[in-house]
Amino acid sequence: MTDVLRELAAVLAERKQASPESSYVASLYHKGLNKILEKVGEECTETLLAAKDAERSGNVDDLVYETADLWFHTLVMLSQLNAHPDQVLQELARRFNLSGLEEKASRGQAD
Amino acid sequence: MTDVLRELAAVLAERKQASPESSYVASLYHKGLNKILEKVGEECTETLLAAKDAERSGNVDDLVYETADLWFHTLVMLSQLNAHPDQVLQELARRFNLSGLEEKASRGQAD
Amino acid sequence: MTDVLRELAAVLAERKQASPESSYVASLYHKGLNKILEKVGEECTETLLAAKDAERSGNVDDLVYETADLWFHTLVMLSQLNAHPDQVLQELARRFNLSGLEEKASRGQAD
Amino acid sequence: MTDVLRELAAVLAERKQASPESSYVASLYHKGLNKILEKVGEECTETLLAAKDAERSGNVDDLVYETADLWFHTLVMLSQLNAHPDQVLQELARRFNLSGLEEKASRGQAD
Repeated sequence: MTDVLRELAAVLAERKQASPESSYVASLYHKGLNKILEKVGEECTETLLAAKDAERSGNVDDLVYETADLWFHTLVMLSQLNAHPDQVLQELARRFNLSGLEEKASRGQAD
Repeated sequence: MTDVLRELAAVLAERKQASPESSYVASLYHKGLNKILEKVGEECTETLLAAKDAERSGNVDDLVYETADLWFHTLVMLSQLNAHPDQVLQELARRFNLSGLEEKASRGQAD
Repeated sequence: MTDVLRELAAVLAERKQASPESSYVASLYHKGLNKILEKVGEECTETLLAAKDAERSGNVDDLVYETADLWFHTLVMLSQLNAHPDQVLQELARRFNLSGLEEKASRGQAD
Repeated sequence: MTDVLRELAAVLAERKQASPESSYVASLYHKGLNKILEKVGEECTETLLAAKDAERSGNVDDLVYETADLWFHTLVMLSQLNAHPDQVLQELARRFNLSGLEEKASRGQAD
């Protein structure tokens, strides 16, 4: 499970070269940043509504689905602006003193 | 870098037991789901604004920082509702036919 | 110009009785609150993006258009939940000591 | 009640000249567009959550309050970008063929 975000970032980077008709992601890149950000905002709203409904029903299936949509569109946004999810994960590791950062630091020393 | 989300989910699960005064996350849990979702919405807005500014400036530092805030608060939301980021990553792996899913499937067969 | 919100609220109230196929608003009511709130969230995101673009270009046409969309969908939301824009305007008048409130107070005394 | 938005826009325009310490609105203008848009996004999220809670409880008090916050901050946004709520109301009147527009058209003919 662990490398899903990194693999997905690689798929997204590849599709930047593709023609707009070839896939949903390629068409999003082609429409430009505003359209990608509209999708991020939309999926955030759907996530909030799914969370309220999950609170009531106890069923998290929709919440998981909508959160996947939200994370996915933030990955497209990062890709469009030439940023990488590893930068986000490093920031989180730094804040919480997680091993991801230590690994990176030790790789840094090895260089 | 790879297990940052999972490690962070473990940290967040631990803090559910802590007193509200002990940390920012413990105080968020204590305030309840609406306060957590307000933070998700806030961080989404800040991410969108940072993306617009990054488009103009070419500098993605703020965008990475705000996206980390957004992902972090979605992890708190999942934790509050007893969901786990692995469920979200599995959903993404399933959609994109990524190896995370294959690994999981093969583990499933091994059981 | 002054009674646009009130006239619009009357139009929206009327369409609550209509069949889902008869108009966009009737179809929104029929789809239910979550769909209406998704539209509010969407239009809010589009308003934010239009504001950022207006800051850059000096042209507010899109911003005016998107703000109209946002206000419109908040009116549909209020209508769906049996609230009225006058309640919102009264709250604003109260906060800012505007004459709307005085009028209402004096009408109250006349009763 | 009818002229609340217009009166409020006049108040907001006045406060653009004031020192940042003199009022909440003056401090918002001073912090700039991003801070104003963050508030619009925040209040939109709080409105959505209040609507979900109103659906459940049948009580619209919080919803009215949060919608007032949302409309208020969109007025600050318009003011910051030198747009006026009448432009938004005219756009709504145009779409729905409301009398606001006819009045404006007849005033136009009188000129």
